[in-house]
Amino acid sequence: MKIGIIGGGSIGLLFAAYLSRDYNVTIYTRTERQADVICKQGLQLILGETVSSTMVEALPIREMKTGADLLIVCVKSYHLKDVLSYLRDNRAALLFVQNGMSHLSQVEKLPHHNIGIGIVEHGALKLNDHTIKHTGLGVTRAAAFRGHADLYKLKADKNLFPLVMEQDYYEMMLKKLIVNACINPLTAVLGAANGELLKNTHYYKLFQTLTEEVTGIFNVSKADMQEYIEGICRKTALNKSSMLRDIEEKRVTEIDAILGFVMEQASIRKKEPALSKLLYTMVKGKELQGEEMD
Amino acid sequence: MKIGIIGGGSIGLLFAAYLSRDYNVTIYTRTERQADVICKQGLQLILGETVSSTMVEALPIREMKTGADLLIVCVKSYHLKDVLSYLRDNRAALLFVQNGMSHLSQVEKLPHHNIGIGIVEHGALKLNDHTIKHTGLGVTRAAAFRGHADLYKLKADKNLFPLVMEQDYYEMMLKKLIVNACINPLTAVLGAANGELLKNTHYYKLFQTLTEEVTGIFNVSKADMQEYIEGICRKTALNKSSMLRDIEEKRVTEIDAILGFVMEQASIRKKEPALSKLLYTMVKGKELQGEEMD
Repeated sequence: MKIGIIGGGSIGLLFAAYLSRDYNVTIYTRTERQADVICKQGLQLILGETVSSTMVEALPIREMKTGADLLIVCVKSYHLKDVLSYLRDNRAALLFVQNGMSHLSQVEKLPHHNIGIGIVEHGALKLNDHTIKHTGLGVTRAAAFRGHADLYKLKADKNLFPLVMEQDYYEMMLKKLIVNACINPLTAVLGAANGELLKNTHYYKLFQTLTEEVTGIFNVSKADMQEYIEGICRKTALNKSSMLRDIEEKRVTEIDAILGFVMEQASIRKKEPALSKLLYTMVKGKELQGEEMD
Repeated sequence: MKIGIIGGGSIGLLFAAYLSRDYNVTIYTRTERQADVICKQGLQLILGETVSSTMVEALPIREMKTGADLLIVCVKSYHLKDVLSYLRDNRAALLFVQNGMSHLSQVEKLPHHNIGIGIVEHGALKLNDHTIKHTGLGVTRAAAFRGHADLYKLKADKNLFPLVMEQDYYEMMLKKLIVNACINPLTAVLGAANGELLKNTHYYKLFQTLTEEVTGIFNVSKADMQEYIEGICRKTALNKSSMLRDIEEKRVTEIDAILGFVMEQASIRKKEPALSKLLYTMVKGKELQGEEMD
């Protein structure tokens, strides 16, 4: 089985490193430079004290080949529009692994018979163009958005890179979205590690207000969701959320895919997402402040 | 005329340095150590390239003497309760120069016949126990709270340390409070210099929402106030607000005296200060985060 992985960021490199052990993998990057480095030096995967190296084929995305059975799209939600044109004429099944839910409306318009949606619960940090650090062991969840779910049941390391099939893609994504919406913007604005949301009484108050607001918009149980998110905060207490890291490193964040989607849904459902709006504006401002300081 | 200055912080030292040129000044400090240093080494005032030194009497506050004509109380609002007991038996006129308005209820209970209220528009930075940098030339405004206003018409350097008498202490303080409420908590939470509130379109939106909320609570003209505050942001564009500096240096902030007062007034006037509440909680959380990281 041939797998194409689109995107040379942390998640793309992580998928390529693990799946290339069992499949014929090609990784497609935005820049020719990164494809060159990967072809020549192979992918390096760091897990704890262990560094493993694998040779993987890499090409710039504009030279994308047909013939893959599955294309896994690992670019950030806000870069999706740049890669969709390369997918349109490819008959492969597609698996999208973006954060947030705002990409669903774009995915829906694709003509492909088989489209899957995945969510990634691993921690991964890209150290350079061909080196990836697996910082947190998690799972990848996948579900069919259209067509056959079986296509995404990949063989992969059961301990280090497990794949879990889910029945309902919407429920699966909504849960992840709510988690991201309640942790990421708050930690990004407050400059706080995930565990601070529980430990700091004032932050906890904000976290509770936000959970109430977001679960209220989607009509899910606040108590269940809060318990679930608190468990994640505890397990990742010392970690910085991806959005906080994006702000600190002056990168664009996923705020539109996350709180942007929450606000859109609130508007459709005639609810007033006061705190989400404020956090959205604060994060957008912090993105802009980062740009200006460059 | 004998003047006692209570508080060895930046404002206390600034007042002592300028007023000791024309008056017999004693400065009262919390610690014996600071009083010692000032007595032995004198006060150093840095203004631009100029450093001037003056010998000033200094004593720890628990050794406070009677006989002063005027006591100027220069401690932060949240330290006021610690010094009030030293004032109760002193017949001097009192001048209070705290930020915010929450100290008025404490001041009101004092038995003194002459009480004045001042606001300080200077920039000052304390470099060590006896050295103060005058970073921004401004004015001190004063008005009578009770008794005679004439007592506060001090002779002082007209260019560098002017005193301006105001008719209505409440109006004067309210204006300063609204300025502080609209600039300080936002800049402290966003980690932004004052000018960013105008330059960053997202921050400007928050700034406008906050100005609308705060002016609405006090029934003052939003347009006038906003123009006035924007002028201050422009003039101090590269400066960090005192609250942002407090957060950065892990000190307690004046959030209770500023937004705490705004929220109290909102509650009395049956208004809902949504953004003020949020910023209040964020700043309180940041104070706590600062403590935990020590």
